[in-house]
Amino acid sequence: MAKINGNFQKLPGSYLFTETARRASAYAAAHPDKKLIKLGIGDVTQPLVPSVIKALHEAVDEMGHKSTFKGYGPDFGYDFLIDAIVKNDYEARGVKIGKDEVFISDGAKSDCANISDIFDIDNTVAVCDPVYPVYVDTNAMAGRAGDFGNDGRWTNLVYMPCTEENCFTPSIPSKVPDIIYLCFPNNPTGAVATKEQLKAWVDYANRNGSVILFDSAYEAYISDPSIPHSIYEIDGAAECAIEFRSYSKTAGFTGTRCSYTVVPKALMRGGVSLNWLWGRRQSTRFNGTAYIIQKAAAAIYTEQGKKETRAVIDYYMNNARIIREGLSKVGLQVFGGINAPYIWVKTPGGMGSWDFFDRLLDKANVVTTPGAGFGPSGEGYIRLTAFGDAESAAEAVERIVRNL
Amino acid sequence: MAKINGNFQKLPGSYLFTETARRASAYAAAHPDKKLIKLGIGDVTQPLVPSVIKALHEAVDEMGHKSTFKGYGPDFGYDFLIDAIVKNDYEARGVKIGKDEVFISDGAKSDCANISDIFDIDNTVAVCDPVYPVYVDTNAMAGRAGDFGNDGRWTNLVYMPCTEENCFTPSIPSKVPDIIYLCFPNNPTGAVATKEQLKAWVDYANRNGSVILFDSAYEAYISDPSIPHSIYEIDGAAECAIEFRSYSKTAGFTGTRCSYTVVPKALMRGGVSLNWLWGRRQSTRFNGTAYIIQKAAAAIYTEQGKKETRAVIDYYMNNARIIREGLSKVGLQVFGGINAPYIWVKTPGGMGSWDFFDRLLDKANVVTTPGAGFGPSGEGYIRLTAFGDAESAAEAVERIVRNL
Repeated sequence: MAKINGNFQKLPGSYLFTETARRASAYAAAHPDKKLIKLGIGDVTQPLVPSVIKALHEAVDEMGHKSTFKGYGPDFGYDFLIDAIVKNDYEARGVKIGKDEVFISDGAKSDCANISDIFDIDNTVAVCDPVYPVYVDTNAMAGRAGDFGNDGRWTNLVYMPCTEENCFTPSIPSKVPDIIYLCFPNNPTGAVATKEQLKAWVDYANRNGSVILFDSAYEAYISDPSIPHSIYEIDGAAECAIEFRSYSKTAGFTGTRCSYTVVPKALMRGGVSLNWLWGRRQSTRFNGTAYIIQKAAAAIYTEQGKKETRAVIDYYMNNARIIREGLSKVGLQVFGGINAPYIWVKTPGGMGSWDFFDRLLDKANVVTTPGAGFGPSGEGYIRLTAFGDAESAAEAVERIVRNL
Repeated sequence: MAKINGNFQKLPGSYLFTETARRASAYAAAHPDKKLIKLGIGDVTQPLVPSVIKALHEAVDEMGHKSTFKGYGPDFGYDFLIDAIVKNDYEARGVKIGKDEVFISDGAKSDCANISDIFDIDNTVAVCDPVYPVYVDTNAMAGRAGDFGNDGRWTNLVYMPCTEENCFTPSIPSKVPDIIYLCFPNNPTGAVATKEQLKAWVDYANRNGSVILFDSAYEAYISDPSIPHSIYEIDGAAECAIEFRSYSKTAGFTGTRCSYTVVPKALMRGGVSLNWLWGRRQSTRFNGTAYIIQKAAAAIYTEQGKKETRAVIDYYMNNARIIREGLSKVGLQVFGGINAPYIWVKTPGGMGSWDFFDRLLDKANVVTTPGAGFGPSGEGYIRLTAFGDAESAAEAVERIVRNL
């Protein structure tokens, strides 16, 4: 008799965004006359920029002719894209990354989850609280999280609370974890980490042999020039950190799917190269990202592509400002939204996250994400995203304010 | 100290196709004057058909305009593609599959590997021998295969030899496995399974509570009308089988990346729905296939798309005939190549697979795949693919014959 992976049954309810989408759909079905504004899931709304569209058309044409047709690509991505990444995302910031340390894939969600495969089940995992649910759920599925308790915490995870008191930047935990997920700019709180803060984490990881899994999917939204975009801007990070990057938010690729992961060759544990482990994992369980999509991603790095994507990011960050300022004005406590496309809002009068979510859905017809869905310390907050239209952002603010 | 997944270190050498590519590249570098013909890796060479190119261009245009732009798609794929699959791949063959039983993804390789995540580590896995290495390596990485022995076998896997004696169709093993990988039309042998043979497997699985993982990535190459294209053409399969399909070989998508997996709702083990398990796995660890790629896949199902892809398959199958007939004529024993794009060739004079591979590379400048790379029972064979040009196929045959 085939036995299923029993860890799945320990997962509480459905994936957070599946549940919020379900509630929003149910509301929409029951109220077809109401126009919902969706500031919940972090999904972009602006079209792909002209440089990317042009690159896609050109690549499609190549696929239509025998002489330029592309079958299986290189296991870890085409050189034209990897070269652009090394040069623009790292060399330009004074960081040296080898071409064979970059692995192209179909999404940071996949990579953040799949990286779990190269680690032993017997590792202690630390996560921020609140946190992007994928880190937690993946480790739970793998059997690394223990059991889900009544307190909303997995018994074997180390939770690092990110609260108003510590400015949503986690303190180093007392129990030393083997694997540490960090995400800056942070999803969901919009907080960032300074060089000094990251340096403390890198030193701690190197001292203890921990591995930092650094998700910098939102680095393009950093406006403060003193904030690092990559963990490799910190000395010693190549010996302890894996970095995840995504084009989803950088260039509107949520429906186009491309990302990459950096695993430095200097990163060894138990005498084994994690670069080799990840390469073996990817070449065995993945067949690369479509050629046309990799061409599209490379177009982001052209001079014109950079200008165009920058303009879209500025557009979204103007939304963030509208939301931040509009809600602050009426006395709501608002965090993030300056170096990140997420605005983290304290619920009024200590209301529960899901209650406030339901109320905003029902009264203001605005879809948000309840902070509690990101972990126990997210209780009492909701997350808004800046990825809508400028008009919708302004209208959403107005509707929320009217229905407080 | 972070601990790595020690199972990776048990894997012998590199992934098969990485190793054959390495040898071919080394030879090409050392002999820049020689023109290699690649009949090794099963990679297509004909361009995407006009209907697919047209759909891609149209979808790219949609991504360039705000009103038609697509962000995150539905977790498990767009209805327009799922509907086409249900209707064309199943209803047309008398099989009823629900829309919510189809999961679109980026490749059958990914899905065949990732399906492992929903099963307990403690399951006995049976594989054909020879076999597509992904099934074996994935289970080895997960810790389900035990140790790799000197006899070229993993201690905990059940090997089902596919040999000349049993016409390369496995016999039911004496030790009952929990999970059974079957692939028909077969990679690498090109063998097919009749309805009666599959019926025996389905009955066996239902009797014992086993789950069949059925890889039918090559179904489009079946020419014999009596051979089933889907395991669901067999009564009872919905209670015991998961099916993997791919557009890689059907429509030249090796560099475009789209596939799907069917997990029937009737498939339960230990009271848990495997459809739910796979859905939870995919929604947590994957973010879907690009919209433009799904549009491209849907174009395969239009009347014109069907005609065009059929013509390409016929072209490849003519290559298969050229190879099969050419090598048979000089006395080589040749299998497959009638209902599959693979030709399975017995080495002359009992020569070893890798020796014959090296000899054909060195003397005939033809890249093949050594049968031993697919498992111990593949020793004494090489695999040739029909995915080249007609001229190259003919020239490769001539070169091989000249250098026997």
